[in-house]
Amino acid sequence: MSTSMSVISAPGAADSLATSLRRVRQRTVALAAPLSAEDACVQSMPDASPAKWHLAHTSWFFEHFVLAEHAPGYAAFHPRFEYLFNSYYYTVGQMHLRPRRGLVTRPSLEEILAYRAHVDAALERLLGDGDLPPEPAGRVTLGMHHEQQHQELLLTDIKHLFAQSPLLPAYTELLPPAATEAEPQRWIRGKPGITEIGHDGSGFAFDNETPRHRALLGEHMLASRPVSNAEFREFIADGGYSTPALWLSDGWSTVLAEGWDRPLYWQEDLEQEFTLGGLQAIDPAAPVTHLSYFEADAFARWAGCRLPTESEWEAAASTVPVAGNFADSRALHPRPAATGASELQQVYGDTWEWTASPYSAYPGFRPLAGSLGEYNGKFMCGQMVLRGGSCATPAGHVRPSYRNFFYPVQRWQFSGMRLARDGT
Amino acid sequence: MSTSMSVISAPGAADSLATSLRRVRQRTVALAAPLSAEDACVQSMPDASPAKWHLAHTSWFFEHFVLAEHAPGYAAFHPRFEYLFNSYYYTVGQMHLRPRRGLVTRPSLEEILAYRAHVDAALERLLGDGDLPPEPAGRVTLGMHHEQQHQELLLTDIKHLFAQSPLLPAYTELLPPAATEAEPQRWIRGKPGITEIGHDGSGFAFDNETPRHRALLGEHMLASRPVSNAEFREFIADGGYSTPALWLSDGWSTVLAEGWDRPLYWQEDLEQEFTLGGLQAIDPAAPVTHLSYFEADAFARWAGCRLPTESEWEAAASTVPVAGNFADSRALHPRPAATGASELQQVYGDTWEWTASPYSAYPGFRPLAGSLGEYNGKFMCGQMVLRGGSCATPAGHVRPSYRNFFYPVQRWQFSGMRLARDGT
Amino acid sequence: MSTSMSVISAPGAADSLATSLRRVRQRTVALAAPLSAEDACVQSMPDASPAKWHLAHTSWFFEHFVLAEHAPGYAAFHPRFEYLFNSYYYTVGQMHLRPRRGLVTRPSLEEILAYRAHVDAALERLLGDGDLPPEPAGRVTLGMHHEQQHQELLLTDIKHLFAQSPLLPAYTELLPPAATEAEPQRWIRGKPGITEIGHDGSGFAFDNETPRHRALLGEHMLASRPVSNAEFREFIADGGYSTPALWLSDGWSTVLAEGWDRPLYWQEDLEQEFTLGGLQAIDPAAPVTHLSYFEADAFARWAGCRLPTESEWEAAASTVPVAGNFADSRALHPRPAATGASELQQVYGDTWEWTASPYSAYPGFRPLAGSLGEYNGKFMCGQMVLRGGSCATPAGHVRPSYRNFFYPVQRWQFSGMRLARDGT
Amino acid sequence: MSTSMSVISAPGAADSLATSLRRVRQRTVALAAPLSAEDACVQSMPDASPAKWHLAHTSWFFEHFVLAEHAPGYAAFHPRFEYLFNSYYYTVGQMHLRPRRGLVTRPSLEEILAYRAHVDAALERLLGDGDLPPEPAGRVTLGMHHEQQHQELLLTDIKHLFAQSPLLPAYTELLPPAATEAEPQRWIRGKPGITEIGHDGSGFAFDNETPRHRALLGEHMLASRPVSNAEFREFIADGGYSTPALWLSDGWSTVLAEGWDRPLYWQEDLEQEFTLGGLQAIDPAAPVTHLSYFEADAFARWAGCRLPTESEWEAAASTVPVAGNFADSRALHPRPAATGASELQQVYGDTWEWTASPYSAYPGFRPLAGSLGEYNGKFMCGQMVLRGGSCATPAGHVRPSYRNFFYPVQRWQFSGMRLARDGT
Repeated sequence: MSTSMSVISAPGAADSLATSLRRVRQRTVALAAPLSAEDACVQSMPDASPAKWHLAHTSWFFEHFVLAEHAPGYAAFHPRFEYLFNSYYYTVGQMHLRPRRGLVTRPSLEEILAYRAHVDAALERLLGDGDLPPEPAGRVTLGMHHEQQHQELLLTDIKHLFAQSPLLPAYTELLPPAATEAEPQRWIRGKPGITEIGHDGSGFAFDNETPRHRALLGEHMLASRPVSNAEFREFIADGGYSTPALWLSDGWSTVLAEGWDRPLYWQEDLEQEFTLGGLQAIDPAAPVTHLSYFEADAFARWAGCRLPTESEWEAAASTVPVAGNFADSRALHPRPAATGASELQQVYGDTWEWTASPYSAYPGFRPLAGSLGEYNGKFMCGQMVLRGGSCATPAGHVRPSYRNFFYPVQRWQFSGMRLARDGT
Repeated sequence: MSTSMSVISAPGAADSLATSLRRVRQRTVALAAPLSAEDACVQSMPDASPAKWHLAHTSWFFEHFVLAEHAPGYAAFHPRFEYLFNSYYYTVGQMHLRPRRGLVTRPSLEEILAYRAHVDAALERLLGDGDLPPEPAGRVTLGMHHEQQHQELLLTDIKHLFAQSPLLPAYTELLPPAATEAEPQRWIRGKPGITEIGHDGSGFAFDNETPRHRALLGEHMLASRPVSNAEFREFIADGGYSTPALWLSDGWSTVLAEGWDRPLYWQEDLEQEFTLGGLQAIDPAAPVTHLSYFEADAFARWAGCRLPTESEWEAAASTVPVAGNFADSRALHPRPAATGASELQQVYGDTWEWTASPYSAYPGFRPLAGSLGEYNGKFMCGQMVLRGGSCATPAGHVRPSYRNFFYPVQRWQFSGMRLARDGT
Repeated sequence: MSTSMSVISAPGAADSLATSLRRVRQRTVALAAPLSAEDACVQSMPDASPAKWHLAHTSWFFEHFVLAEHAPGYAAFHPRFEYLFNSYYYTVGQMHLRPRRGLVTRPSLEEILAYRAHVDAALERLLGDGDLPPEPAGRVTLGMHHEQQHQELLLTDIKHLFAQSPLLPAYTELLPPAATEAEPQRWIRGKPGITEIGHDGSGFAFDNETPRHRALLGEHMLASRPVSNAEFREFIADGGYSTPALWLSDGWSTVLAEGWDRPLYWQEDLEQEFTLGGLQAIDPAAPVTHLSYFEADAFARWAGCRLPTESEWEAAASTVPVAGNFADSRALHPRPAATGASELQQVYGDTWEWTASPYSAYPGFRPLAGSLGEYNGKFMCGQMVLRGGSCATPAGHVRPSYRNFFYPVQRWQFSGMRLARDGT
Repeated sequence: MSTSMSVISAPGAADSLATSLRRVRQRTVALAAPLSAEDACVQSMPDASPAKWHLAHTSWFFEHFVLAEHAPGYAAFHPRFEYLFNSYYYTVGQMHLRPRRGLVTRPSLEEILAYRAHVDAALERLLGDGDLPPEPAGRVTLGMHHEQQHQELLLTDIKHLFAQSPLLPAYTELLPPAATEAEPQRWIRGKPGITEIGHDGSGFAFDNETPRHRALLGEHMLASRPVSNAEFREFIADGGYSTPALWLSDGWSTVLAEGWDRPLYWQEDLEQEFTLGGLQAIDPAAPVTHLSYFEADAFARWAGCRLPTESEWEAAASTVPVAGNFADSRALHPRPAATGASELQQVYGDTWEWTASPYSAYPGFRPLAGSLGEYNGKFMCGQMVLRGGSCATPAGHVRPSYRNFFYPVQRWQFSGMRLARDGT
């Protein structure tokens, strides 16, 4: 087992790994079940991928990183899939270009499901003995967490695709909205001084969460809950989108170039928004989502506050159970915070929270060895860290040290914000 | 019946119109039969449209221009289809933007086929009485010819789509290549002096073929057959794609910008080409196709010749029966000319022939009245005329006066060339 | 003297050629006199060139095509100028890219004037003997006409540049506007039947005006004068720019993409326009100018008319003296027609007139031999013919057969229109 | 004096402020002295500005932020200059768009120099009394430092402009190269633990250097000198530009899209580079410069090292005198380190050093009040910090806490790198 692999902790028994794997693999297929072959094939923008591609790429990941190396005699399903379904691993070889993923009508969805079955069968055989060494076991574990990431992308990509259709179709039926009002936002004091940040080594983590290291926090306060739709509506009403002084320079250029005047998926009337359940009334008490970093940052400035750093966020989040409105709740949309809570609310689930932290390497960071080193490290430039997971994140996927990252201009993820400020 | 409609001659009896219509409508569905729902949904470039869109738009054409006006009580299949499936009739209303046609995964292919059935049933009812007045009868006829145009586009668009896939799938199985050699090209003298050009009023024609008018031809010669693949290979071998003096200025810019060095669909080895039957050996004796106007013009200059004008072409083509390798032959690819013929060969079918004529209005041209006036006239700028039909054109669709038109840069149609020269 | 050179008729005596040449060369320098070194250096768009480049390129033309071949012992002024000041003659060699012409601050304007003097001196020596053979004499003549074309471009390019400055500076002081009203437009009958078109061989012509050939004209009428500003204002007031049915498809796309709602240089109030004399009141009686072909075509459709073909135009223009408001009048802006005239007015000068004719080769056209063959022929695609010259054209430069050509989208030239219609 | 202004410490006496100001203002004019009016007018890319614009904008800065508010009766030089020469202060009002700065040929260079004189005279009057209150005094000081930044940009922008000319002109004559070899690079241990970072309040600083705050450093080493040209040549020879595993994802995309294979201004032979003195041999011992962040980062990865964080850099730089090869040395190009030194070399001057730190707000950062708040804060996204100044930086302009910032893709500044690594 290579040093660089040590961050992937294999579960205790191959049996339970096989069970977990099976559950994850089946879940991806289940998420694609409401989709027609057409829905699964089309790519709505270069940032997004077709559902069929997610189904295939997550299988390729196991095929390339596990089966090809660790399953003697494994026969690849198709000789060109290595090219077609490699995402961005240049050290693996040339790949089909990302903006062209939606042009691949053949192989069909059906064939891709057969591809999945082929890979699953080989994985079952490999894991069947119950005696998988740490290196391949670690890679299987990585593949499961990798697949969970694509489960979330599958949902956000389908949402984006359906939003392009003039008919605004629904992916699924949503739960009825909760009839609550948002709790007033309160300020909760963060602990200043030196804190430990990063993954502590118990259980799985991506390489970018390591190594655990010390960070220095100043006096600061965090909002008790994310910013709500009602609050964001106030920002709009107050001319937020037409006040350059509130915006980062690149943000203001984007506002002008794209004509932004509201969150992605909000309708012009600011009353309805497009959801995975089709057009729905905007719930004023629910956390605002589908914000770019630029919008989150502008809102914070307007509110006289700032965004939390990822260290501040992680220090606070470590004190809270990892529970919330994840994809497994089937809400598939942020919901208002429960009332009457006394502590930090909605830290996990509902909506990712933009932090003030650019996505960079932790001190002493070492990427995984080999091609897997391309997984996270090479994106450490130009992107911002988001924390906490969303209503589209599989339960069990995130943890306090989990670092998500997107470009400041992107907003098709479930991305919202929590306010922070200096002082006590 | 409005004056502007007079160019559409309705067949003698509503019965036979109903039969013709049924045949055309069924043929479109048959052409789409080899396609999966995914194949039918994706758009490979802004110039192309999804097969599903072709299926829907041709139905919308009847719905809007025939049923809505002439079938009392007709209920539109879906209120948004007027928006979704209008192509470019601005006077009808706003429309879904062309480059976004491929984003519409819903309605599904199945729903579009139901839409077609709905429209077909209404058309059957309308035509059932056998007593359709000239105006709606003329519009039904126009709709049939319109649909035939989309049948050809459906094939060329699918070919383009399949060419984007690294797997290079086949739409159908092609006939085995003919084992012939190309006839030597001979020069056939064209008749100089004043000739009559344009549609003579017997049977259907598009408005852009009218009015019939006099044109003045000089002394000229036409090649007995189109340029062959073998001949075009000589042009390449002689450095045709790297000799700026052979090219129009805009053509040379395109060669540099796009890196063109061979016809579309030819493989790098110049031995194979992508066809509707997948990768096939290039038949040296068959007409070269998938050329842009720029390439056809450069080849002609290299050969010391020129392209024919559309008047020269039409004058000659009027002396030849309208027969050839059309889509009905199921070759779906150009084939070598028959040997031993003494006259002009392959005037019709196999490959469209670029002419030297910019697509302009004939003297005295009047577009159809109303929104149908947008059908042809508004494209009379920047495009070049092609004549004769191709292996993807339905038999019976073209005639000597038929004017096809594309931008000089486009080459995803079956577009080739025939040489011409001055003198005797 | 090569056959292809025969279209360039050398003047009778070398003496008078030297005198003409001197006059043309001095005029270019005089046109640049009001410009600062900065004005002469900057390029406002890829279509335009810096005045300094015009000064240099016209000298390079003589250097390359006359002195290098016909002046034994001529020493090039600078070894890199062949690269820097070649415009588009690929057969001559690589060239500095057009959009980068404005980046060349050195050589300075002063050095370019020295370059001109160097070339002029060599030309004087060459022409001094009075015994120049026809071939070089023809090339000198071509160079003079070439330089006159750049004199007009120098003015239109400077106008475009100055229009980019928020200070809207003036190139020169304009004449006061004439206090006339526009004559009512009358219809003048054109002569139908076969006519001779193209240059008749007496005096100089460009290759694209040849060969003289027969053309067939139908019954048609031409407007007595160009469309006026007042008339174009009516088109705007009637919603011309927001009525898609009036526009060619590519024209309407341009209107939407560029936000066009008035001629280039008209101010938003439709009362003032930017001229070579700075901001001026729009003279309602003067011909409208700075129209694209798309706008001219849309206006004609709105007026229930059409544009003349170039054959119709030339047939009529041949009956009228070549006189008008050329650059030598120093008005440098279109002026109202004289009142009381009974025949065609403003055929020459004031504003170029868009015709309905795509720029193509005449039957039997042969470009000049060698690199000079790139002068005109390679642009015969995608452009439209304009006729008659403008207020920026040097007097003596145009003739009835003169063919100017621009893309239908371009409008920084002095380009307007005259109406035509079918019938009698 | 507002709180937010407190970071601008006014010098002790107005007299000395006037003297300093005069010196800075004269220096800008002196830097432009080798430029022709043409050189000073043209803009070579949207990132760069014309020298004339730098001359004007720095004057506008004093006009708007000092004279308009603090010099009663001051008359603006020209009413449109507020629009023309505002750079990016949206809260001040609309501005001439950055990519159009090069289109302004009028006002001329001469007029801009008159504008400068007008502003200088008013500033002299204002400062003449020797009794300027802290607020305007602080703004004058800020304006001086602002002008020094533009002095550096003027040089890098001119270098970029001259590099576009096929003639590769020289701005000035450079010093002859030093005949030294590069010292071997040694590792110097940085001090781990908590350190104080940011400006300490003595003398001037920009707002982005504040507030001074604690930072936590791990065990680390810094290279004794910047990476040399010879070392960078090894990276190229080893296939650095064709090894995707060495690059950040966005960096690799840039390499492919731009065809990068060497530092900006290096010639294809890797032997010569374009400098402010024209083409020169690359000095192997001199620091490499004109690297993007992507190239610096890739080099560091190739070398098995990393870039220093800005805290590491600042902690080390604080121990070293602020001296080096600044613009005042007139070398205007990086030069080899002096030999025999035992400590950190070339920390200041020669070439800016990319750090691993994204440009963000320090904890507790507050931008200046009012429009001056747009100076620095709004750029805190997507850019990387550079430290130490360069051969184009005015002596006296930088300090240990000085933070420069550019996008990772930019490389027209004098930007190089120093290696760092973890451990001891």
